[in-house]
Amino acid sequence: MSITEQLRFDSDGLAPVVLQDYQTLEVLILAYVNQEALERTLDTGTVYLWSRSRQALWLKGETSGRRLRVVEVLPNCELDSLLVLVRQELPGACHTGHSGCFYRRLRDGELEEIAPPLFNPDEVYRP
Amino acid sequence: MSITEQLRFDSDGLAPVVLQDYQTLEVLILAYVNQEALERTLDTGTVYLWSRSRQALWLKGETSGRRLRVVEVLPNCELDSLLVLVRQELPGACHTGHSGCFYRRLRDGELEEIAPPLFNPDEVYRP
Repeated sequence: MSITEQLRFDSDGLAPVVLQDYQTLEVLILAYVNQEALERTLDTGTVYLWSRSRQALWLKGETSGRRLRVVEVLPNCELDSLLVLVRQELPGACHTGHSGCFYRRLRDGELEEIAPPLFNPDEVYRP
Repeated sequence: MSITEQLRFDSDGLAPVVLQDYQTLEVLILAYVNQEALERTLDTGTVYLWSRSRQALWLKGETSGRRLRVVEVLPNCELDSLLVLVRQELPGACHTGHSGCFYRRLRDGELEEIAPPLFNPDEVYRP
């Protein structure tokens, strides 16, 4: 039985995926796959996701060129989530231009940016 | 406005949380918090979660003694998930006895254990 059959998707047909840089070990993104996105990811070695906001299959980096290549796929103990170690073709995995989506930390109840963006999203997404 | 008010919980009142060891950067667990679990986590500096299987507030490590101390809380760009860097009081964050929940990798379509368990769950959970 393949992992796409074994993985326990939720009632919306989705499973959460943690995308982690295989070299720096930075957690870049928490996103979701459905069965099709997972199959394409495994078939192509490039990360496909399910966009909940657009309700559509999403080749990560399709617009920005920042695709993520699969290095390792690790399902969790309960087979209801995945950790995917990835190699970034270009740095800046977050649509805000930051290295990853977790670019702010909580300090005394306030959100504090821990690193500046690596690219200008206005130039990348609306050229 | 506090992060417990800012965080966008899903229709079940939950938000996913990635728990990462602050030293090794190993992704230990993908779990969920509701508002109460997040408040307790922030108030106590110890990770509280929401157990979807038991539908109950869950002090991580309550039975096993393997509590997770909060080092850093990082919300994502969309404010609908959290990365929490933690310090482990004892190694072995997964209920299977493994270091973390992602202890198997996909190899030629099969799940392959990448590291042995650190403790025997039968001794820890049913002494």
